[in-house]
Amino acid sequence: MTDLTLYSMPSSGNSYKIRLLLSLLGRDYTHVACEMQSAETASARAAGHLPLGKPPALHLPDGTILSESNAILWYLAHGTGWVPDDLLTQSQMLAWMFFEQNRHEPVIAVRASLNSYPHLAEQATPARMEKLLADGHALLQIMEDALTGREWFTGTAPTLADIALYAYTHTAESRGGFDMARFPNIAAWCGRVAALPGYRGLFDHG
Amino acid sequence: MTDLTLYSMPSSGNSYKIRLLLSLLGRDYTHVACEMQSAETASARAAGHLPLGKPPALHLPDGTILSESNAILWYLAHGTGWVPDDLLTQSQMLAWMFFEQNRHEPVIAVRASLNSYPHLAEQATPARMEKLLADGHALLQIMEDALTGREWFTGTAPTLADIALYAYTHTAESRGGFDMARFPNIAAWCGRVAALPGYRGLFDHG
Repeated sequence: MTDLTLYSMPSSGNSYKIRLLLSLLGRDYTHVACEMQSAETASARAAGHLPLGKPPALHLPDGTILSESNAILWYLAHGTGWVPDDLLTQSQMLAWMFFEQNRHEPVIAVRASLNSYPHLAEQATPARMEKLLADGHALLQIMEDALTGREWFTGTAPTLADIALYAYTHTAESRGGFDMARFPNIAAWCGRVAALPGYRGLFDHG
Repeated sequence: MTDLTLYSMPSSGNSYKIRLLLSLLGRDYTHVACEMQSAETASARAAGHLPLGKPPALHLPDGTILSESNAILWYLAHGTGWVPDDLLTQSQMLAWMFFEQNRHEPVIAVRASLNSYPHLAEQATPARMEKLLADGHALLQIMEDALTGREWFTGTAPTLADIALYAYTHTAESRGGFDMARFPNIAAWCGRVAALPGYRGLFDHG
């Protein structure tokens, strides 16, 4: 018997963040898969199980539902080493998490989606894909520069910022077509994330 | 003598959030105006004063620079009533702040920008403006529904979620062309924010 139920989209980075953290924390949960455009997602939405309209959503034992991937990470990581104690490092962690949701995800994840999901193919015009490619390389360069001389985004230990940024970055080339050979710091950092005890991959739903 | 220096864009909601919170907290600061496409912004960027490439950025007395509007709010509000103490309410507050950066700002603020800044006019195609209008009304409906039976986004007291969402919502009609008559709960909530002691308006830089 588990106390948490996660509505998550198997192929989505935002949903994967939660599954990755739960695995790193060794926590059990019940998983309800809500793939894009599936009957399961439509019925979860109609039943009020996705209050902001899309996965991920975490259902707590008392019926409270928490939305927004990075806010769910915050809730689950409280009291663990994944949230730094000091205010400044905590704020810098949140800065990377807001950067991820406001600037990174709308470019890196959107280009991957336009490449991956057949029902979005008609929106993937050459001009749009070209602009997303250039914008994405500029954002990845900000990450590359931030990792100069440091192993993790807020310093010497991994935090939620690393989990949030990893979700869509580690598939930026395979799904988004970004040229990751330009970003060796990011490649090394991805390797460090994948070597964490308890790590699980995007498609490892076991 | 003040201990904080804020690089902020006078006409931007993201920058306004910080000025509003500082005013509500009664805190002094030195203001460096970085308007879009201005020489001041270019030189601040070249000097490394805007590490993530754009305002706002808060410079602390020891030289540390904090970026991302909602992370700066978090840093400044620590230990005040603007951040709830209990984990669940805090997580719900952050959920609205991530919603604001990932879903609200890229639609509500972007449509306002396309309307307001002459150098963006050529990107304001009729099809794009129409899609932003429909998407924005759907997002505003989520906010309207969330305010049913409650005064503030996380319950009975204002938090950073209200400041973050107010910044671009209160000008959604005047700058973005959204039809706010559809959303009476939002209108009443905007009135409550504007009545807070220490409130200052978007263009009140005095």
